[in-house]
Order: sequence, then C-alpha cells, then structure tokens
Amino acid sequence: MTDTKTTSKTDVLIIGAGPAGLMLALWLARLGVDARIVDKRTGKVYSGQADGFQVRSLEILDSFGIAEKIWKESNHMIAEVCFWNPDETGRIRRNNRVVNGRAGLSRFHEVVLHQGRAETFFLDAIRDSYGPANDDVRVGSDSGVESGLPRRRRIAVERKVMPTSLVIDEQQADDAEAYPVTVTLRHLSESEATPTQMLSNVQDGLFRSNLGLPDDDSLLKGGSTVDDEREEVVACKYVVGCDGAHSWTRKTLGPEFDMVGEMTDYIWGVLDIVPITDFPDIRNRTMIHSASNGSLMVIPRENRLVRLYIQLTEVSVGGGRVDRSQIQPDMIIKAAKKIMSPYQIDYHYCDWWTAYQVGQRVGNHFSKLNRVFLAGDAVHTHSPKAGQGMNVSMQDTYNLGWKLGLVCKGILQPAVLSTYELERKAIAKQLIAFDHRFSRLFSGRPAKDILDETGVSMDEFAAAFRQSHMFTTAVGIKYQSSVLVTTATDIPPEDVTGDESKIHADVLQSTAHSTSALSAACTLGTRFPSHQVLRHADARPWQLHHKMPSDGRLRLVVFGGELSASSQQMEKVNKLGAWLSDTLLPQLPTMAIMPGTTNLHGGGRPGYGLAPEQPPSIVDVLLVYAAAPDPGNPGLSGSAGDAIDFFDFHKAYRPFDPKLGHDYDKVFVDRPSHHDGDGHAYENYGIDRTRGAIVGVRPDGYVGLVTSLDAESGWPEVARWLLGILQPRTGREQAK
Amino acid sequence: MTDTKTTSKTDVLIIGAGPAGLMLALWLARLGVDARIVDKRTGKVYSGQADGFQVRSLEILDSFGIAEKIWKESNHMIAEVCFWNPDETGRIRRNNRVVNGRAGLSRFHEVVLHQGRAETFFLDAIRDSYGPANDDVRVGSDSGVESGLPRRRRIAVERKVMPTSLVIDEQQADDAEAYPVTVTLRHLSESEATPTQMLSNVQDGLFRSNLGLPDDDSLLKGGSTVDDEREEVVACKYVVGCDGAHSWTRKTLGPEFDMVGEMTDYIWGVLDIVPITDFPDIRNRTMIHSASNGSLMVIPRENRLVRLYIQLTEVSVGGGRVDRSQIQPDMIIKAAKKIMSPYQIDYHYCDWWTAYQVGQRVGNHFSKLNRVFLAGDAVHTHSPKAGQGMNVSMQDTYNLGWKLGLVCKGILQPAVLSTYELERKAIAKQLIAFDHRFSRLFSGRPAKDILDETGVSMDEFAAAFRQSHMFTTAVGIKYQSSVLVTTATDIPPEDVTGDESKIHADVLQSTAHSTSALSAACTLGTRFPSHQVLRHADARPWQLHHKMPSDGRLRLVVFGGELSASSQQMEKVNKLGAWLSDTLLPQLPTMAIMPGTTNLHGGGRPGYGLAPEQPPSIVDVLLVYAAAPDPGNPGLSGSAGDAIDFFDFHKAYRPFDPKLGHDYDKVFVDRPSHHDGDGHAYENYGIDRTRGAIVGVRPDGYVGLVTSLDAESGWPEVARWLLGILQPRTGREQAK
Repeated sequence: MTDTKTTSKTDVLIIGAGPAGLMLALWLARLGVDARIVDKRTGKVYSGQADGFQVRSLEILDSFGIAEKIWKESNHMIAEVCFWNPDETGRIRRNNRVVNGRAGLSRFHEVVLHQGRAETFFLDAIRDSYGPANDDVRVGSDSGVESGLPRRRRIAVERKVMPTSLVIDEQQADDAEAYPVTVTLRHLSESEATPTQMLSNVQDGLFRSNLGLPDDDSLLKGGSTVDDEREEVVACKYVVGCDGAHSWTRKTLGPEFDMVGEMTDYIWGVLDIVPITDFPDIRNRTMIHSASNGSLMVIPRENRLVRLYIQLTEVSVGGGRVDRSQIQPDMIIKAAKKIMSPYQIDYHYCDWWTAYQVGQRVGNHFSKLNRVFLAGDAVHTHSPKAGQGMNVSMQDTYNLGWKLGLVCKGILQPAVLSTYELERKAIAKQLIAFDHRFSRLFSGRPAKDILDETGVSMDEFAAAFRQSHMFTTAVGIKYQSSVLVTTATDIPPEDVTGDESKIHADVLQSTAHSTSALSAACTLGTRFPSHQVLRHADARPWQLHHKMPSDGRLRLVVFGGELSASSQQMEKVNKLGAWLSDTLLPQLPTMAIMPGTTNLHGGGRPGYGLAPEQPPSIVDVLLVYAAAPDPGNPGLSGSAGDAIDFFDFHKAYRPFDPKLGHDYDKVFVDRPSHHDGDGHAYENYGIDRTRGAIVGVRPDGYVGLVTSLDAESGWPEVARWLLGILQPRTGREQAK
Repeated sequence: MTDTKTTSKTDVLIIGAGPAGLMLALWLARLGVDARIVDKRTGKVYSGQADGFQVRSLEILDSFGIAEKIWKESNHMIAEVCFWNPDETGRIRRNNRVVNGRAGLSRFHEVVLHQGRAETFFLDAIRDSYGPANDDVRVGSDSGVESGLPRRRRIAVERKVMPTSLVIDEQQADDAEAYPVTVTLRHLSESEATPTQMLSNVQDGLFRSNLGLPDDDSLLKGGSTVDDEREEVVACKYVVGCDGAHSWTRKTLGPEFDMVGEMTDYIWGVLDIVPITDFPDIRNRTMIHSASNGSLMVIPRENRLVRLYIQLTEVSVGGGRVDRSQIQPDMIIKAAKKIMSPYQIDYHYCDWWTAYQVGQRVGNHFSKLNRVFLAGDAVHTHSPKAGQGMNVSMQDTYNLGWKLGLVCKGILQPAVLSTYELERKAIAKQLIAFDHRFSRLFSGRPAKDILDETGVSMDEFAAAFRQSHMFTTAVGIKYQSSVLVTTATDIPPEDVTGDESKIHADVLQSTAHSTSALSAACTLGTRFPSHQVLRHADARPWQLHHKMPSDGRLRLVVFGGELSASSQQMEKVNKLGAWLSDTLLPQLPTMAIMPGTTNLHGGGRPGYGLAPEQPPSIVDVLLVYAAAPDPGNPGLSGSAGDAIDFFDFHKAYRPFDPKLGHDYDKVFVDRPSHHDGDGHAYENYGIDRTRGAIVGVRPDGYVGLVTSLDAESGWPEVARWLLGILQPRTGREQAK
C-alpha cells in the first residue's frame, strides 16, 4: 500500500473525537493552531453514553460559549436527592432527602444531557472559531477579525481515520521546532468504520461498554479491498491520545504505559427510557437500596427521558468474564421492577441501554517525553454513576490544550508542558479513590441494623454523598505549586501528593511568590471564582468570568480598591497601569484574537468583530475597583460615571486602537446594579477595599499569583511570574 | 403573459417579510396553518433600520423561543439615561441622569440590536416550527411529534414576489370556508428585485427612509424580458398587508384607506458607527440638546457600534420637499461634531446611515371585511427615536396571528377577527400621540430660562421621558372589553377610547364576566405577568411564562390556594379538575402541538418531542398552588414532595398518555427555591392564598377572565368565556 501513502505535517494530532478530543480541538481552534483530529468512527454519539455535566465543566464550557446550550437543553438536578431504603418490613420508603448542590458555589449547578448533544455543540464551536458562517455577513463590510488560518488549515474532525503506527524520534524531543512524532493514519472505508451498533437501532447496548470487546478488533476484521482506503504519514510536533479505555495510543507507547487498579464483581445495567410509573420520585435524583434485590439510581433527563442505573444481582461473574448474552433490556427492566416494587415501572420508548462491570483503574504515565500525551478514559476508568467520566476527561484536555497551543505558537516556554501530568494525574487518583468508596457503598446490601457488619450503613452512604460535593463538582480541585502556580510566602507550604509530584514541584518551583492573605477566596491553584461586577462605561452587570473567555490570554485582574477621581489609591492604580503598559507588557508576546472568542457572552454577535490595527498583548489587564459609598445618590447606585470619568483611568485600562477607538470593556466596578442585585465582589473575593490586590489568572482560569499593588512588593512578583512562563517578545514583534 | 399564469390556494397570504410579516408567518407556522409569505426583495435587511426591542416585544419573542438570542447579542440599555444640556455659557454638560427602565416590570429590559439579526432569528424559528433539522436526529428513533404539514406546505419566505392585483369577492366574505380574496403575484427577476442600496456597500442611505421615493416606482422601472419572470393567481381566505409605509395593499384597498396625520419641518440624520471619541457618555443612552446647533441622541449598540440620531438644522425643507442631494454621511457627522462640541467625535467604520423627516400618521381602517388586514408601518408611521416602530408592528401581527390561524383551523369563531382593529387601532393612536409630543420636545431649542416661552423646558423633557415608560415598554397597554376580554362585575365599566370603539365593544360584549378583585395584578385586557414558581415534580424553578409558549392554546391558570394532601381546598381544586376534564373540555376542540413549540425554554431539545397517542385540548390547564408554611423543614424549603404526593392531584392536572406516561409539567408551587430565590408568586399576582382564583389567558398572553374556584360563581364564567370564543368540538373529534 506504499503507493497510496501521502505525507504531511501538523503541530498537534489528536486521536479520538469524544469529549476529551473535542475539548482539545476546540482549544487549539480558538488559538488558531494548526492541528488535526481524527476518529475511526463514521459519526458522533447519537444517544446514551455519558450524560452528567458538573459545575466546573459548565464553567469551562461557558468560557468557550457552549454552556448555555447545554444549560438550556439539559435537565437541571437543582433540588433534592432522595434516598429510598427498606423499612423494617423490607418495603422501600423515602427516608432521607438532601439538597443537591451547594448555593453560592458557582452560577451553575449539575445538569444532565446526553453526550451527543455536547459533541454537536463542540463541533459547532470548533467551526465557529474562525468567524461566523457567511450566510449573514454583508458583502463589502468588515466581516470579522482575521482568523489567521486559511480554510484548508482549519480544524474539523476527520472521521473514518485510524492510526496504525506511532514512532517518536527521541533525539529531536527537546527541539521545539522539530516534528519528532511520526504517525501512520489509515483512511477507512464506510463499512469498516461503522460500528455494529450504528447499523440498526439500539441493537447491541454493550457497544463501548467495558463488557464489550475492544472495538479495534472487530473494526479490523473487515476487508481492505474497498476504493476509498488509503494510508497517510503525518509528522507531528505533538500527539494526544484521547482514544478511550481501550486506547490504541496508550498500548502503542509500550508495556510501561499501564492501567493500575482492579475490577469488582458488581454488574450494573443502564436504561434510558420514557417511564410509565407510579413511583413518586421519578423526576428527582433518587438512590434506592432494596432489601435484597440490589440498588437502583434514578437520573431524570431531558425530553421526558429518565436514566436508570440498575444493579444486576442475577448476572454471574465467572472467572472475571460476564456472560454477555444474558444481558438485554427486558432483563434489565425486570431487575428494576424488583428493586422498585411495590411501585410499577414500565416503558414504551427506550432510547439507549448498556451494562458494565464496576472497576477503577488509573494510568501510570500521562505523557511520553512531553511529546505524546494521554487524556480521558485512556488514563482513568471507573463506574459512571457519579457522572464524573466525561467531566474529568474534558478537564484533562482543558488543562493541556492552552499549554500545547501556546507552545506551538512560540508564546509559552515548553517546560510548562510537564505540568500536565503533574496536575492531572493527582486528580485522576482522587477520582479513582472517590469512585472506589462510593461504588462499594452503593452496590452493597443495606445494613439491617447497626450490628449488621457486612451491610452498608445508609447514614454513611448519605454522608459520603454529601461530603463528595467539592470534589464531584470539580470546583474544589487544587493544582499544586509549579512554574504556573506560585507558592505563598505568608503561609506554610502545602502538602503535595506523592513523592513523584514533589520532585516535579521542586524542579518547577517558580521564583515568583504570592501573598495569599490578600484574597481569601482566590486560592492558589484553584479556579478563579466569578462574581457580578458592573462595567464602568455603561453600568451593565457582568459575571467577571464572562470577561475572561478561553482565548489563550493570561490575565491580571487588578483589584484597585476603593477609588475616586483624584485619590492616592487612584494614583497608585494608574502608576501600576503605566508600568504595565510601558515596561512589562512590551517585553511579552502579543497574540491576535481569534474571531470565535469575541462576544461569547453578549453585547454583539458571537464570533463577530471588527479588525483592530494591532494585535493585543498575551496578558489581558482587567481593572475591578470598588465604588466609594455614595449616600447622596442612592437612587443611582448602579452609576459610576459621576464619581470617576472614564478618561481618569490610565490608558492601560482602556486600550486605544486607531480604528476602533477606546476599549470600554476593561474597567469594572463593584457596586449594586439597578435591576440585578449586588455582586458584592470585593467581599466574595475576600479582598480588602482599601488595599486591593493583583490576581494572576492562567488561560484556563486557575489562580497562579496573588500579590499586592505595591511597586516594591507586588510588581516584581508579577514580572517574575509572567517572565517565568512566557517567551520574550520577538524582535519582529517589538519593531511593530 | 397569461400563458405563464399558475393558480393556487392558500389560507393566508402575507405581503411583506419585515418584522410584522415575519411575526405573522411565525405564528401561522407554529399553528400548522397553510399560509404563504411573499416579499419583493431579494434578501432581508443586513444592517441599519430599526434596532430597539422593548420589554413586551421581548416577552412575545420569548414565547416563541427567540428572545434569548436577541437578549444575548444585543446591547442592554439597562442603566441610566443621561441628559446633556447647555450651561449658561452654552457649553453642553450632563445635568441629569435617570434610571432607564423600571425594576420588577418584567424579567426583560430594553435592548438594541439591528433588525436584520431579528429577521434571521424569525426565519430560523419559522423553519424550526416543523421540527429540528435532520442532521442530528438518530435514524430509527422517534424524531419528533408530527408536524402535520408535508414539506411543500411549510411556510418559507418567497422572495422576489410582488402582488399586482387584489380583488375581494364581497359575496363570499361571510363564508368561513370560502377563498374570497384573489391576488395576482408577479415573480420578479433578480435585477428587478434588488434595490439600489444592495448593489454596493452603503451607497444610498435614504433607501427605505421617508425621504426616499416609494420603492415600487423604481422597482417597476426594470424591463420584463427576463426568463424567470412569471405571474401567479392565488385564491386566499385572508390577506395581510405588512408592506410598510408605502403599503401597496393599503393603496389597493382604495382611497378610503388613508393615512391621517401631519409632517413637521424637522429633519434628522442617523449614523451607525464605531465612534472614536472623548465624549464620556458614549456607551450610555444619552440625549443632548445643544444651545443652537440642534439635538442629538446616542444609542450604544452591539459589536462596538453606536447609533447617533442627529438633528440636521441646516437642511432646508422647501415646499414640503427636502433637497436629498445635500444629505450624506460627511454632512451628518459634521452636524454631530457641532452639537457635541467641545468633545470630539469621528469614525473609521460606518455600518449604515439614513435621514428622515419627522411626522406622525395613522391609518383610518385596519381591515376590509375582516378578509384583508393591514399591519405595521402600513397603518402607522412616526419618528424612530423612541424605538417603537418595529415593536408596535410586531405586536400588531402578534395580536392578529393566532386569531387568523385558529379561525382557519376551525377552532375559533370568525367573529373574533373584528377584535384586531378594535384592539390595535387604539394602540396606534396612543403611539402617534406619544411620538407627536416626544418628537417636538426633542427637536425644539432648549429654553434659556423659564421666561423663554418658545424654548423647550429641559425639566419637562426629562419628565416626559420618564412618564412614557409604561407605554413605550408596551407592558402597560390594555385591550378593551370584547368577546375575548370579559368585563368585571365588581368595578365600574372602564372608559373606552372613541365612539367607534364603543360600538365594537357593545356588539362584542361577552356574556362572561370577571371578578377582578380576585387578582390584583392580572388586570383584564393586559398581559398576564410572569413570576417564578417551582415545578411540583422536581422543585425546579420556572418562569410561569415559560410554561405558556405561543402554541395557540388558551390557558386556565388555576391558582388553587394553599394546599395540603387532604384539605378541603384540595378537594375543591380536584372537583374543578374533574369538571374540566369530564364536562367542559370534551365540548371544546383539540389541537395537535407543533414540534416547534416544545422545549422552547429548556428541559429538552427545542422542537424535539415524542409523539403522544392523543392530541391535547385547545385549553391548557396549569395548576399553581401555594405551599403551606413548613417551619419544621426550612432546609428543604424548595421541596414539595413531602407535603403532597404527585398522585394526590386530579388527573386533569397530570394528563396521562399511554405512550408517554404522566405529564409532570402542569403542577407548580409557590415557595422559595434552593438556589434561585423566592418568586412570591401569590403576592405578585395579588391572589389570596386561601381563596385562590382562576385566570383565563388568551393565546397571546392577555388576561381575558378572572374568576373564582367556586362551582356556583366561577365555573359558569369559565364555560361562558370559552364557549363564547371557541367552536364546539366536532363529532369526528368526539368519536376519538
């Protein structure tokens, strides 16, 4: 077949177009990076699979402008979780009910929607990264800022494409300009690429289940005589395997890339149905432990669907292998009827079904030479009931994407790439530990009383559920110290997890330091929270997150403190602005903004903007000041214009472009709005209104630096943090 | 050309695809009515034109699922309006600042976005009325409920089509089954249909301005020798002229269809630019009266655009005719610079410009024989600065659409059609009166002091602006009594406007009556307001409006009062349910729900649903009860399941379908939510928690009936109101 081989180059090759691969592709599209994403399937997922979107995932998707679509179409699990347990006679009864979610944690809460819709939104967002479709842009007008990439280099999923070999030239691994990874891709015929499941309607629910066979095997059974089959050799700077639990990429990297963990004997079935039932909690998230027929979880879904996770106590696990032929929807609903008895449950419509064996495994390496990376199910698998899998997978590549992209663009130092494994392996281990505990509590038989030692205490189960919240929402996760996340000098250094991590942390220890006490709520290594502030120029309320889209830029959020037109504090804030715009930022790279990152949250058409004359700095400066109390003007409490004129702020905070005029979108004030309440931003960020603070935020929204506005103590930390991460501005850029 | 004529039939022919025509087309598409919409242009508006969306318009657009797109892309004029006036030296200064909008009026406030985007959203919504596009619906699954119309009968704008004759067969006007209106349509060639403006970029800003020529004249100058030109004769039940200020339809109806009103000598220019300026209020809605150079209004817009309305004091109006050649963007910005001096204003990007002469005119008839109707600019024109034109136009056809549609479907009695003119002409007259006053205050020279009698008092101007709010938002408008809006027996009959209206009101006087004191906030003839309630089945908070989409159904909102499982009040509510489902509703028609009206506000994919076995009643019953105080369980205040089991409610409130099970989306409770505050619905609707009330709501969301839950006093009014409007259920339906 060598005669049909073609060769090409790409900066990043992504293998697998599930949620992890699509998240990575979206990041790279939004950065204007030359990348490709291939998948051996003919199409995306149309029903079933993952369905839970956790809080932090929604925040991340929102930073790309996708969350609101999911938010709208999904079912919101906003209220209570109901626990049904056997009473003394063995009949199930609701005996506990706890609030789902925690108020104030985020502006989002947990929602459920089938994975295929999210994949559709990812595909739309990747396409829109380069500007809006042409159908509605007037001929002759400026139809958007430059996308920087010709149409043929834009990222789009290439389906029916499967890798067959991967070789790393280790000699070249340290050369940032090299393409050391060579991958052979095979372009499949339609029949080869179509999984059995897709050939008919909901025939084999075990497809993609861990009870199914690795699908590569069946895939390669097909002949190779069809016309459209060909091979291609691609030279890559980086390759990322997002190819699932049976990851071809992981296996190809060799036997030292292994999954560590164990399987249990618990088998569960899953049904997505429109239920016909008299069970009163069918539209609430409900956990049922029956006396002796196993457990069941109700997840109310979109479009009148309900997902049932049903323990299959009658399926035998012999010698680690399950008899797959036993498992069919009829048998699964029969198990559900037993657990839910005396309530009735049946269905007319079934949308999807599957079954799986509970187990937890984590990969021992997430990267080879920082040239080939693994993400998602390729490095962690577990049971699906906590709705974590798709979330942790997307968050893996959300962590990796901007690092890879900015390194490819020559903006970020390549050493930063090693923070991917440092940060995400720790999370994967926490996930596995959580799932291990939770699965066993859920699959176990309920204890009859406190003397029943082999049974599971229902109080312990409910408590475990409640306590897991900061982790399962992913809002509480915390990345350890590295070049990206400075250490605080005002508190003792934190514990890091495991020896391996410690070594990384030492090597990467940044010379910049933080004064963490300056912001009680912006914790180093955690995500920067969002609160409402008003835009100075028009007093419109905004979530601060909405001014921090995933466009690849680092951000300095200057909490300027309480300001008035001619105060000393104003002078301090403006001196900082002068230093930033005249001294620091000119040393750092600039980067053109991709159209797809504009107007994501309103105030214009998403992806639509007018071309500026100059690309902006890679460091975005936002000023958030606190309004001085104005008792004489309470009726106009949302107003800012009377106290400070827009032109009182240093130009660092209102960048001027000769074509577009001043940018009115960088200065915000913490004060009550007219119609939308009070964000209490300073209070919520835990920042002193007199002293203020500077918070440095990574492109993925995590806090890397907290320091003061002072020239002596704060400015040098800002400079050290940024210069420790970024490449210097090139001569060509400086000449501009 | 007779040899190329084709003939066809349609229930409704809409002439003109601007906002009024598109609103009507959308209504008819959402009702599954056989209708056509034609427009002589090649395309929709791409920039400029109308841009203001008022509160009530957004509520209406939201009932079709469009508002959120406008809400997102638009600029929000949420904060203050700034008034700049000359000081004693003649220099302009900000001397007043008032809050724009009124908190609590609606969940929306005024926004601005150019008309073309709204037209795009209308076109998308018309297409989606028949179900989602096929690209993402799995083969073999139920891909949505039945649309009821084959693809060839679905409504889509037919462009390059112009009417050339219209004849009404008056003999047939009273026969509901007849097609008494015959219209000849001419299918134009591309060059004929392309207005001069579209041939190049922003060449003639006076296109579609009232300073321009009627565009039919220029349109018909073109030759008729091209290939694709042909004529078609269409027999119509109804025709609606939405064809603008120069309405061909109005002129064709004869000289008695006239516009009454007057023009002024005031000429204004309009610029849509990205401003480069040091004027500090450029992102606020700002009104500037200069000492002697005229007035200017700043409307901050989407995508960094700003619209400037600029009085052109140097353009002469000689003999009623303006010298059009004088008016160009350069000249308009020069006028703006003078008014805004000493501030600088300039631009690099100009998106659109125009100019117009201020005047106010209203049509003396809105309908001929209730077979041909006029709407929008065809019956009212005025100055654009208050942002009313597009809004009142859309609201005209929002009023007309469901009436026409349900009459065509044999559900509504044809006599209801006369309420269109009754209701909308009164609004047009109020609009003209408002604009007359406001325009003169704005165009007038500011008074130097209180002795300056020819000048305009700036205090009076600001006061007029503030007072206009209930009208300009359209939230305060009130339709008079008719068969649709019952009169109250507990308060004196209200005044009606004008003799003519009085006659209509007398003729149409419904025999049903209301007890208006039962709801302080649901005023007869005004729009039913929206407040947050929780869904009983899952405690998810919803705006009540989101459970009342524009799907053509009338609604009975049963405010059941404070309920517990076995209370007397519960018994009363369930008795009402039994009477509705067993006695009243079987007498009234059913109507299949179009896919486009499902999941508009979340909980599933818009336009996607599974087919039920039976079409529902044309009357939708919603139960909103008040939660009894539960001091023992404050932590779960959003919960409802403990107090009342879902199956305690009569089946009228949880319709059962053999394929889809129970409908969990009809019972709501007024109580605090866990994460989204407290809607205080009973308090806000002004309904007593013990007594409750039934509120009858028209398909367009206006209150038609307020009565009690009592069998003696309330039920007969419900029956009279509905039987007075609707046709009886047909034998065929009853047999089902």
